[in-house]
Amino acid sequence: MKQAVTTLGVSTRGQGLVEVTEPVARWLAGQGIETGLLTVFCRHTSASLVIQENADPDVRTDLERFFKRLVAEEPSLYDHTLEGPDDMPAHIRSALTSVQLSIPVLEGRMALGTWQGIYLFEHRTRPHSRQIVLHLLGE
Amino acid sequence: MKQAVTTLGVSTRGQGLVEVTEPVARWLAGQGIETGLLTVFCRHTSASLVIQENADPDVRTDLERFFKRLVAEEPSLYDHTLEGPDDMPAHIRSALTSVQLSIPVLEGRMALGTWQGIYLFEHRTRPHSRQIVLHLLGE
Amino acid sequence: MKQAVTTLGVSTRGQGLVEVTEPVARWLAGQGIETGLLTVFCRHTSASLVIQENADPDVRTDLERFFKRLVAEEPSLYDHTLEGPDDMPAHIRSALTSVQLSIPVLEGRMALGTWQGIYLFEHRTRPHSRQIVLHLLGE
Repeated sequence: MKQAVTTLGVSTRGQGLVEVTEPVARWLAGQGIETGLLTVFCRHTSASLVIQENADPDVRTDLERFFKRLVAEEPSLYDHTLEGPDDMPAHIRSALTSVQLSIPVLEGRMALGTWQGIYLFEHRTRPHSRQIVLHLLGE
Repeated sequence: MKQAVTTLGVSTRGQGLVEVTEPVARWLAGQGIETGLLTVFCRHTSASLVIQENADPDVRTDLERFFKRLVAEEPSLYDHTLEGPDDMPAHIRSALTSVQLSIPVLEGRMALGTWQGIYLFEHRTRPHSRQIVLHLLGE
Repeated sequence: MKQAVTTLGVSTRGQGLVEVTEPVARWLAGQGIETGLLTVFCRHTSASLVIQENADPDVRTDLERFFKRLVAEEPSLYDHTLEGPDDMPAHIRSALTSVQLSIPVLEGRMALGTWQGIYLFEHRTRPHSRQIVLHLLGE
């Protein structure tokens, strides 16, 4: 049984989903692990991780619009407004999704379904540099 | 330390929660692991996993109704409508819950609380055949 | 590779976030693990776990208020009402967040971002004694 860890940087262009499946899969492929568990961890409180459909791009924009409607960027609703009208909604959207995903590894690859892609979900309006930690355990 | 992996098929009857605690526990019991970590992973983007109360069945129907209200099946709200009015809401409900659960294993059993059951949450209107991957690590 | 497991008790004072980063970090520090994976698991269906900003306390109260608005304590909406008007909303809020977090361990510490704290999110109105299970794997 062995472990491997790395940190990936992800540049975002403001609110929206950034696919990270490919860089995660590429790192995994270099580790020589056939069977194991891969954990992806987002080190932020205003961005998160989701697994979503990787086919029709409309799915991503519909998802983004849903979260904008559900968690309004309306400062009168919040006390925490010093970091901008999008900051508290970003924290809430992060809590409604997740900052962590653990994915079984089979035959050297993530056991994702055919239509599943891994996305970093940026919840802030402005572009950010985000960090995700990858942890792999297996043999 | 050893690993075990399997895939379970879950038949759903349309929207709603299908308990999978029993088949997961049965598979775990056959692995001879006393202490470890069990990961359940749903290979879909329109079904997800939740841990919920396993006593009063009303909890499940209330939960289903809440998610139907929260994420309306109203095509005018979405661009991604080709796969039916329930498809985009299914993706959103999946993002609001989770496709992955990791549960510690103690004394050969999942460390679930007394009232916790594991459920596959089908978000599509029609019955589907779903797959969940189980990954176990421990000794 | 080795494992360690423990259970932590967390006393809540009714609805709201209780930070558990410190007791979790203290337990981890005593295990002698440099690199690994730490899983936190909440054994309840009316409390959950979130990672949130650990700086401005307004973030926590805003988050609590958001979930109170989103999941109304209005018995006419639910069938499961016998355990009080806050019980079914508590189950739903738990499903919207998560009962489990897995966090990579690097250099003997959780790989949390600067502003990330781990919180138990109590969803019931009255104080409760909650249990979280910690599972650590690494070397």
